[in-house]
Amino acid sequence: MRRWVPALLLVYAICVPPLRAAEQVDLIVHGGIVVTMDPQQTLVENGAVAIRAGKIAGIGSTATVLKDFEAPQVIDARGGVIMPGLINAHNHAAMSLFRGLADDRALMDWLQNYIFPAEAKLVDEAFVRAGTKLACLEMALGGTTTYVDMYYFEHAVAEETAAAGLRGVLGQTLIDFPAPDYKTWDASLAGCDAYLAKWKGHALITPAVAPHAPYTLTPEHLQAVKQLADKHGVPYVIHVAETAAEVKTIGERYQTTPVVHLDRIGILGPNVIANHMVHANDAELLLLKKHGVGVAHCPQSNMKLASGIAPVPKMLALKIPVGLGTDGPASNNDLDLWEEIDTAAKLHKVATGDPTVVSAREALAMATIDGARAIHQADKIGSLEIGKAADLIIVGLDAPHQTPLYDVYSHLVYTTKASDVRTVIVNGRVVVEDRQIKTLDAAAVLKQAREYRERISAALKK
Amino acid sequence: MRRWVPALLLVYAICVPPLRAAEQVDLIVHGGIVVTMDPQQTLVENGAVAIRAGKIAGIGSTATVLKDFEAPQVIDARGGVIMPGLINAHNHAAMSLFRGLADDRALMDWLQNYIFPAEAKLVDEAFVRAGTKLACLEMALGGTTTYVDMYYFEHAVAEETAAAGLRGVLGQTLIDFPAPDYKTWDASLAGCDAYLAKWKGHALITPAVAPHAPYTLTPEHLQAVKQLADKHGVPYVIHVAETAAEVKTIGERYQTTPVVHLDRIGILGPNVIANHMVHANDAELLLLKKHGVGVAHCPQSNMKLASGIAPVPKMLALKIPVGLGTDGPASNNDLDLWEEIDTAAKLHKVATGDPTVVSAREALAMATIDGARAIHQADKIGSLEIGKAADLIIVGLDAPHQTPLYDVYSHLVYTTKASDVRTVIVNGRVVVEDRQIKTLDAAAVLKQAREYRERISAALKK
Repeated sequence: MRRWVPALLLVYAICVPPLRAAEQVDLIVHGGIVVTMDPQQTLVENGAVAIRAGKIAGIGSTATVLKDFEAPQVIDARGGVIMPGLINAHNHAAMSLFRGLADDRALMDWLQNYIFPAEAKLVDEAFVRAGTKLACLEMALGGTTTYVDMYYFEHAVAEETAAAGLRGVLGQTLIDFPAPDYKTWDASLAGCDAYLAKWKGHALITPAVAPHAPYTLTPEHLQAVKQLADKHGVPYVIHVAETAAEVKTIGERYQTTPVVHLDRIGILGPNVIANHMVHANDAELLLLKKHGVGVAHCPQSNMKLASGIAPVPKMLALKIPVGLGTDGPASNNDLDLWEEIDTAAKLHKVATGDPTVVSAREALAMATIDGARAIHQADKIGSLEIGKAADLIIVGLDAPHQTPLYDVYSHLVYTTKASDVRTVIVNGRVVVEDRQIKTLDAAAVLKQAREYRERISAALKK
Repeated sequence: MRRWVPALLLVYAICVPPLRAAEQVDLIVHGGIVVTMDPQQTLVENGAVAIRAGKIAGIGSTATVLKDFEAPQVIDARGGVIMPGLINAHNHAAMSLFRGLADDRALMDWLQNYIFPAEAKLVDEAFVRAGTKLACLEMALGGTTTYVDMYYFEHAVAEETAAAGLRGVLGQTLIDFPAPDYKTWDASLAGCDAYLAKWKGHALITPAVAPHAPYTLTPEHLQAVKQLADKHGVPYVIHVAETAAEVKTIGERYQTTPVVHLDRIGILGPNVIANHMVHANDAELLLLKKHGVGVAHCPQSNMKLASGIAPVPKMLALKIPVGLGTDGPASNNDLDLWEEIDTAAKLHKVATGDPTVVSAREALAMATIDGARAIHQADKIGSLEIGKAADLIIVGLDAPHQTPLYDVYSHLVYTTKASDVRTVIVNGRVVVEDRQIKTLDAAAVLKQAREYRERISAALKK
């Protein structure tokens, strides 16, 4: 009998394929068209993504992924697209409580007679928490997984954003007048320093500095903030060249243009996120390129406030990384990135007279992988690739307005709405499932926002 | 005892209020903010509308309407707005089957290499029925109750639109080359004549003539169509001054500009609906005003095709009636009027550099009462007034993107989405209730559209 054992083992080894157990992961999303936005622009017709420990562990055809991986949670994405979550490159989230407060006014009237008085009277930490929650609710339901913020009490924004399960590059505002959170320059700089130290290294939150603009901070203060950013290795978020009035002011004060001014005082660098960049000339675009500055293009805000049309086709030609931002909900008036994508694709066609510029694919890239580049996070987010963070969304493609389907990029840009977003996953966590938010008490958030409306209206009547 | 009778009657007459039975109506919609768009811009905070025989029988506070009227059907609009249905002033509905077929191409490449070949190979009556159903489904769900169409086989469009329960001004296309429906000029004129005769007086459908454009019909043919329109008393729908190329062609052929050309040959008049009107100079605007021509402004189509930006603020200053159109879904690529309203309000601000032009209220008017004027139906639709057709929609106002609420016009223009439309009533009939279409088999319509996609893709590969 003993002599048979080796022979039996040999037969077994030949006939039974090597046992390779399916790899254990946390979550598999399968059955949708996977739009990876990777460098090869890979599309998988019936594809799947495996997620482990907040990261993408596998991507491929549904058959392959279901063979190679096993997970306790499986989400069916049939009839939809699986794609990277959207990146909102410029926002003032808490201003959601001011949305529609005073539209169709000249910028200075709007700011001086409505927004600044309202902020002075009402913005405190509790306000910022309530407004951030409302904004996170809207963003999550619309498929935004990462946003860049610039406001006051940014530690509160960070706490609420992390609690909502979204990813944020959250910039503490610094400005040369008393702000709702800090009344002096030294206090704001110290507060910002503490904020950066506390949040560095968080899985979802990248703390940042947000000096308001070249015309609202002295060169010395802009430089002091730059040193702070460099000390902590964090992004430097700033409004630049938003309006013709700003260009005029900078010209009068410094005999140059905003981007050149920032270059001269040593601000430009590969950690800078420059918001708007509407009035940049060709030489300035070359400076942005040279220093690796990212641009947050905000087409709808720039239209509504009549700021102008940013030279985006030129930026794309120079391969300057351009992301898309909504700007704050007080000036847009929503946080719907799908409308920004659609508008970006259309606005530059009419502005240049060329219907081939800013293609659907380029517009979608601005809200995903190019947006990630613009906010200096492309190593981590913006595309579906193995090893990147599992920030992805399932977008239904079967609504009447998306039927029939010829080209998935075209539909994602020109016909898809926020309401088509079904499921949202950030860092591997399901934040929205079948249009239901899992991380916030939506009814409570809306109720609180309505209570603030009463207070804000009453305060402005006084 | 007899002497007490008059005294008792007197007591009764004094104490019991005169019995006034509540008026019987078919349907009451109550509890929403009623945005009437009437000449006084009346808003009713907690209001209601009573509907009888397809017309508005009463409007007022919910308390008053529920006291004065009684109906077997009552719809609760709490948390929403009750407002006139939207009017899409320019569409080629059946082209929904081509949506996204070939984007981001120069107009002539797109037309000559994709759309014209596809139309020549595929457009027949069945195609038009399938495409019209798909478009009606999308429009109804998004709150559009009336649309102006221009396509082939328009009798089929009329039948499908009436069956879907929408209101239409439906123009039979006439053009100086063989069309999918009629191969000769005489046949198209005779066919159009029969179409107009058959549909005149229909409760929902206003048949119309739709000569394609000043550059695709001879002056004699444009005039022959005008005579046909005048004979039947129907609208004359035409593309005018859409592109710089058209202006050039008309200049070369007739040594003048498109509007002046049409004026010289006697086309302009109070039944004309002029689509696009992008390249109209000041003198031409005065001609439009003088003749009572309505304009269908299509901001997103004009942007996407790089046609230009229509001088809408000037038109509004001259009180030329301006409506909003999506244009066909092959060029936009959806039939979402909310996005056109938002875009119209924003585009002209950036184009003029003035954030006060095209206010939210003006933009909303373009999609309702001014749209009705532009398509010459303001006696019947466009506002909620007693005696007008009961074309109204309930729009939810409680989504995160609409919270909080300061100004209802601002929210309807800058934040409301098609997905916020809950219920749609046309001519007193409930077409959509709680986001469910009642007049079409949605699944069958989508299935058929997907089958056409296969045929269209295959035909274009040959």
